[in-house]
Amino acid sequence: MKTLTIGMIGAGRIGLLHAENLLRNKQVKVKAISDIRVDHLREWAAAEQVETVTADSRALLQDPDLDAVFICSSTDTHVSYIIEAARAGKHIFCEKPISFDPQETAQALAVVKQCGVQLQTGFNRRFDHNFMKVRQLIETGQIGEPHIIRITSRDPELPSYDYIKRSGGLLFDMAIHDFDMARFLAGSEVEEVYVKGAVLVDAKVGELGDIDTAVTLLTFQNGAVCVIDNSRRAAYGYDQRVEVFGSKGSVSVVNDTDSSAEWSTAEGVFREKPKHFFLERYQEAYVRETNAFVASIQAGTPVPVDGHDGYMAEVIAAAAQKSLAEKRPVPVAEMLRAFTHAG
Amino acid sequence: MKTLTIGMIGAGRIGLLHAENLLRNKQVKVKAISDIRVDHLREWAAAEQVETVTADSRALLQDPDLDAVFICSSTDTHVSYIIEAARAGKHIFCEKPISFDPQETAQALAVVKQCGVQLQTGFNRRFDHNFMKVRQLIETGQIGEPHIIRITSRDPELPSYDYIKRSGGLLFDMAIHDFDMARFLAGSEVEEVYVKGAVLVDAKVGELGDIDTAVTLLTFQNGAVCVIDNSRRAAYGYDQRVEVFGSKGSVSVVNDTDSSAEWSTAEGVFREKPKHFFLERYQEAYVRETNAFVASIQAGTPVPVDGHDGYMAEVIAAAAQKSLAEKRPVPVAEMLRAFTHAG
Amino acid sequence: MKTLTIGMIGAGRIGLLHAENLLRNKQVKVKAISDIRVDHLREWAAAEQVETVTADSRALLQDPDLDAVFICSSTDTHVSYIIEAARAGKHIFCEKPISFDPQETAQALAVVKQCGVQLQTGFNRRFDHNFMKVRQLIETGQIGEPHIIRITSRDPELPSYDYIKRSGGLLFDMAIHDFDMARFLAGSEVEEVYVKGAVLVDAKVGELGDIDTAVTLLTFQNGAVCVIDNSRRAAYGYDQRVEVFGSKGSVSVVNDTDSSAEWSTAEGVFREKPKHFFLERYQEAYVRETNAFVASIQAGTPVPVDGHDGYMAEVIAAAAQKSLAEKRPVPVAEMLRAFTHAG
Amino acid sequence: MKTLTIGMIGAGRIGLLHAENLLRNKQVKVKAISDIRVDHLREWAAAEQVETVTADSRALLQDPDLDAVFICSSTDTHVSYIIEAARAGKHIFCEKPISFDPQETAQALAVVKQCGVQLQTGFNRRFDHNFMKVRQLIETGQIGEPHIIRITSRDPELPSYDYIKRSGGLLFDMAIHDFDMARFLAGSEVEEVYVKGAVLVDAKVGELGDIDTAVTLLTFQNGAVCVIDNSRRAAYGYDQRVEVFGSKGSVSVVNDTDSSAEWSTAEGVFREKPKHFFLERYQEAYVRETNAFVASIQAGTPVPVDGHDGYMAEVIAAAAQKSLAEKRPVPVAEMLRAFTHAG
Repeated sequence: MKTLTIGMIGAGRIGLLHAENLLRNKQVKVKAISDIRVDHLREWAAAEQVETVTADSRALLQDPDLDAVFICSSTDTHVSYIIEAARAGKHIFCEKPISFDPQETAQALAVVKQCGVQLQTGFNRRFDHNFMKVRQLIETGQIGEPHIIRITSRDPELPSYDYIKRSGGLLFDMAIHDFDMARFLAGSEVEEVYVKGAVLVDAKVGELGDIDTAVTLLTFQNGAVCVIDNSRRAAYGYDQRVEVFGSKGSVSVVNDTDSSAEWSTAEGVFREKPKHFFLERYQEAYVRETNAFVASIQAGTPVPVDGHDGYMAEVIAAAAQKSLAEKRPVPVAEMLRAFTHAG
Repeated sequence: MKTLTIGMIGAGRIGLLHAENLLRNKQVKVKAISDIRVDHLREWAAAEQVETVTADSRALLQDPDLDAVFICSSTDTHVSYIIEAARAGKHIFCEKPISFDPQETAQALAVVKQCGVQLQTGFNRRFDHNFMKVRQLIETGQIGEPHIIRITSRDPELPSYDYIKRSGGLLFDMAIHDFDMARFLAGSEVEEVYVKGAVLVDAKVGELGDIDTAVTLLTFQNGAVCVIDNSRRAAYGYDQRVEVFGSKGSVSVVNDTDSSAEWSTAEGVFREKPKHFFLERYQEAYVRETNAFVASIQAGTPVPVDGHDGYMAEVIAAAAQKSLAEKRPVPVAEMLRAFTHAG
Repeated sequence: MKTLTIGMIGAGRIGLLHAENLLRNKQVKVKAISDIRVDHLREWAAAEQVETVTADSRALLQDPDLDAVFICSSTDTHVSYIIEAARAGKHIFCEKPISFDPQETAQALAVVKQCGVQLQTGFNRRFDHNFMKVRQLIETGQIGEPHIIRITSRDPELPSYDYIKRSGGLLFDMAIHDFDMARFLAGSEVEEVYVKGAVLVDAKVGELGDIDTAVTLLTFQNGAVCVIDNSRRAAYGYDQRVEVFGSKGSVSVVNDTDSSAEWSTAEGVFREKPKHFFLERYQEAYVRETNAFVASIQAGTPVPVDGHDGYMAEVIAAAAQKSLAEKRPVPVAEMLRAFTHAG
Repeated sequence: MKTLTIGMIGAGRIGLLHAENLLRNKQVKVKAISDIRVDHLREWAAAEQVETVTADSRALLQDPDLDAVFICSSTDTHVSYIIEAARAGKHIFCEKPISFDPQETAQALAVVKQCGVQLQTGFNRRFDHNFMKVRQLIETGQIGEPHIIRITSRDPELPSYDYIKRSGGLLFDMAIHDFDMARFLAGSEVEEVYVKGAVLVDAKVGELGDIDTAVTLLTFQNGAVCVIDNSRRAAYGYDQRVEVFGSKGSVSVVNDTDSSAEWSTAEGVFREKPKHFFLERYQEAYVRETNAFVASIQAGTPVPVDGHDGYMAEVIAAAAQKSLAEKRPVPVAEMLRAFTHAG
C-alpha cells in the first residue's frame, strides 16, 4: 500500500493532535504543516521529520507531493481551504463544523464533488468505543427499530467569554456533535427540531447573546424522537452518554473514568469522576478517526463520515437556532428550502 | 394516638392492595369496603375482620364511624365520591388521576377545602426509595439548583385495547405520574409543555386515537427543563428512572431488580432485568404512601401529596394533550385561563 | 390447609422478629410466647391476640394446641428445649447455632429423629434474594461445576465485649453463617479447614481470647475451594457478598442499599453505603425463612434447612477453631471421628 | 535530557511489544535487537530505524553505545544475560520471573549491585490504571491499615501443554504476578504461605505435574491476610481484580471492558465481557512500565520495581510450591534460611 503524504493546515491544539496521531500511523508521511504562527513548530517539526513549516497555507496546498490535507484552522477559513484543496486534487479531512453557514458548506461540497476528491468531517465521537458499540448493537438489530434516543453532552467548564463570542453559539459549537451523533444512531434523517435554551450557568453568557443550557428535541423521519441535553458546565466533569431505546430493547453507555475503583469508608461509597478533558476522553477516538481516513483514501473506499454528514449537522444546528429564536418547532424541510432559495 | 377508622370505596386490584397495607398498620381499623361486585369480598372481609361489605358506596360514606375513606373506584366516579365524602366530614385518599378534567377536579377540591377535610392524591412514586433519595439530595442542596431533569417511564407491556380506550390516553393515564414526579423534583411550577407523540409500538393504538410513545418537554418557572420519555412497551420490562442535573452536580437512579447478581459465561455478562410488575416495583412505596396518609391525618398535619398536586398534574396533562393536537408548545398559563373562564 | 399453631420460646430481638413475621402469615396462629422476663410482652401480646404469655417455657412446650415451636432463647438452652419439644411432638425451628458443641447437637438431633418431628435451623441467609439467585444459577448449571467460592462477611461494628465473651467466638458466632453458605453454594461437603485469624480491629478482643479478623479456607470433597473473609468491623457498614466461579462461568452478588442513587459533584461520585443493620438487610429473608418452615410443616415435606445442616456448620466451626489453635489445616474427618469417640 | 540508547534481547511477543513502546518514547533510541531467529526482524528494524539486528546477544551487550538493555528472552537465559549486562555497565529491564530459582536470582542481583547498575523487574501490573489507583488510596491513608487483600487472577484459556511443561508451573508462571501485587498493595513482607491447589479444568494438567486452580493464602508481617485465587481458564475471559479491606474502609477494582455498554432485551440485561487478551488488557500498563524505566534511568532515581521485588516474588512462589507439596503452611523465613545455607 502506497504511503499517504499529508499536509496539515492549522497547528493549534487539535491540529497538533491529529499530526501526532498521523505520525504514529506507519502508512503516513506528514510532510508539511502551516499555521499563522510557526515559530513554536520548528523544533517539533525537526524532531518529527516534518519537512515543511510554513505560514502560507495556500502554498502548502499546491505541494504536488501531498495526497491529502487536514484542515484544522479556524472555522471561518474552512470553506476557502476546502475549495482550494479540492481544486488541487487533495483529499480532505476537515474539522467540525465545516462552516457556520450550511449554504456555504453546500457550495464547498459541490466543488469537492466536482473535483472527485473525498472529504471527511471531523466528528470524532463516531469513533468512540462506547458509541461504536451502541451503533453496532443497532445495526445488528439487537435493539430493534429505534424509538427514543437520549444524548447527554455536558462540558466540564464554561469556555472563556472570548471563545463563546466566536464559537458560533452553543448549538453550532457544542451541540453540533450531538446532532451528528443523533443521525449516526437513528439511521434516519431529522424532520423537525425544537429547542429550549436557557442561561442558568452564567448570566454573562446571555449578555453575549448565547445560551449555556439547552434541551433539543429532534424528530426523525422514521418516527424516532431524540432528546439532547447540553450544559456548558457540569460540576463533576465531562459528561458524554447516550441511550437508544428500540422495539426490541435498549442500550446505554456511561462515561469513561481513569479507573474502575470503588471505595467505601465511613463517609460513603465513592467512584472516579468522568475523564475531564475531551482530548483525553476521546484520545482513542481521534486515533481511530485519522486512521479510518487514511485507510479509506488508501483503499479508495468512501470515508466513514463525509461532507454530507457535516452539512446535515449544520442544517440541524441552523434549524435549532431558528427554533430558539422563534420559540417553535422548526421543520428541517423549511431550512432546506431556505438554502435552496438562497443558492 | 386514636386508631383511624377507614372505609374503602373500590375493591379492584389497587383498592385491595391499599386495604391489605392498611390492615398491617396498627394505627388503623379497616371497617368497611364497597364495590359494584361484592361476592368475592365476603370471605376475605371475614378473615380480615372487615365488618361491612356493601355495594352501596354512598351508604358507606355516611357511616359515622369512618374517619377517612380511600377512593379507588374508576376515575369517572372520583369527583362525586370526593364531594360526598368531604360533605360527610371524611378525610380522603383518592387514586390518580382525580379526574380527566382539571376543571371538575378544581370543583371537587373547592368542596374539600370548604369542608375542612384533607385529600391525598395517589402519586405513589413520590414514596419510592429511589425517588425519595433524589428529592432529598436536591432538598439538601447537594445538586444545587436543578437545570435539567430526565424522567424515563416505560411500561413492560401494552395494556389491552379496552383499557386504552377508557384510560384517558397515554398522557392522562401514564405520563401523569411523570408530570407529578417532575414537579416533585423541580421544586417549581411548569410554565410550558411540548409533546412529541408517536405510534411506534402498535398501529392499532393509533387507530384508537392514542399514542404509544411520547417525549414531553416541560419548562419550569425557575428555568429548569424536564424531559420525559414514555413508551407503552419496553421489551425488557418496567423502566423507571430519573436523573436531575443541577448547578452543583447530578444524581440518577436506576431500576430495581430481584437481585444484584451479575453472571459471566462464554456467552456474555448478564444481570437481572428490572422488576416487571408495577405492584411489585412500588410495593414498599404503596405501603409508605398509605402510612404517610394515616400519620398525617392522625397528627393533623398536611398530607404529603395534596389535591393541588393532583390538579396540577392534570393541568399539565391537559396542556400536553393540547400540544400534541396543535403541534406547538403550550403555555400552562393558557390552560389555567381556560379553566378559570369555564369556572 | 390447617392453620399452624405456634409457640415462641425466647422473646428477644430475633424472637419478636419471627413472631411479627408469623403474625402476618395467614396460615399461622401464634398462640403462646415465653421468656425469662414477660412484663414487656403483655401489651404486645394483647394487641396481637397472642393468648399465652409465660415465663415457664417448659409449660409452654406441653401445650397440646401447639403444632410447632420457635426456639429463640440463648444458645446454651437450645439443646434441652429441642429435646423436650421433640418429645412433646412439636416441630421445631431453632436459631443458629444449635449449640457450641457439635456433640450435643448430634444428641439433640437423634431425639428429633426418634420422635419423628422436623427441625429447621435458622440460617436465614439461605433465603436472601441475592444468595438464592446464586444458588439457582448453580443448580441450573449455568456456572458449571463450582471451582472457587468467595464469601465476604463483615460486620458493621464490633459487638460489646460482654457479647464477645459469651458469643462462642467469631468462628462460632459469626463465621458459622458463612460455613453454612459455603455448603449451600458448593453442593458438596467440606473436607479440610484452614484458618488465619488476627486481632487487627481492637486489641481488647485478643485479650478476651477471641479474634476480630479471619480468613478461612475450606476445601470440598468435589475439589472446590472456598475462601471466607470475616471482619468484626467494616467502617462502611455490613458487607455481605459472595462469588462462585465454576467451569462454565462466574456469578457474584453485591450489597443491598437503600437506593440505587449515584450522585456526582465537584467532590466526586457517590453511591449509597450498604444496608447497615442485619435485621434490615435480611428483612425479607427472615420472612421467607419462617414462611418456608410453615409451608413445609403444613405440606409434610422436608424443611429447607434441617438439623444436619446446623450440625455440619458446627463441625466446620469446631474444625476452624482447632485450625486456629494448632496453626494447621484440619481435616473434617478428624473432627467427625472425635465426636464419634465421645458419643 | 540525554536520549537513552537501548538494546533488546529477545524479540518474541513481549520483546517486540516493549520495542514498539520504546520507539514511541521520544527520549529513547532503540539501537539494537537480538534473537535466536532474526530473519523476521530485518524489515521491521529497517522501517523503525533500528540499526542492529543480530543473533548474538552477547555481542549486543558489548555495544558501548547502549545505556540499557531489555532482557525478554526465555526465563532460563535471564540470569546469565543480567550478569553480563551488569558487568558491561548497562542498566537492565528484565521480564518476570528473573529465574525459577530465587538463589540464582540472588546471585545475579549481587552482581547488579556490585556493578552499580539498576535492574527493573517486569511486573507490568503495578502500572495498571486500576491497581495504581488502589495503591494510591492505600498510600494516602483513605483505606487505613490493610487487613484483608483479595486478588483474583484467572486466565481466559488454558495454555498449550508444551507451554505448561516449561512454564515453571502455575505458581511460578502465573501466580508470581499476584505475589508481587500482594506485596505492592500490602506495604509489608509476607510471613507465611499456604496453598490449596487443584486440577479442575483439565486432568492432563495434573498428568504434567501442574495444577490449574489455586487458592493461596499469604500472611503479612503487619497482620494483613491476602487471598489469591487463580484459575487457568475462566470461561468468560481474563479476570483481573483486587480488593483491599482496611481499618478505615475498602477499595475494589473490576475488569476493563471494550465499552461501558449495557443492553437490555426480552432475553436479559447484558454487558461486555472483560478484555480477553493480556496484551490488550495491560496495553497502557506496558507503556507506563517502559516509560517509568526510561525516566528513572535518565533521572538517576531508583526504578519503581527493582530486583529485590523480583526476588521476593520468587521466594513466595518457592514457598507456595513447598506448601503445595507438603500440604502445610510454610513460613517465608524457612525459605530465606534455605537460600542462605545454599548461598
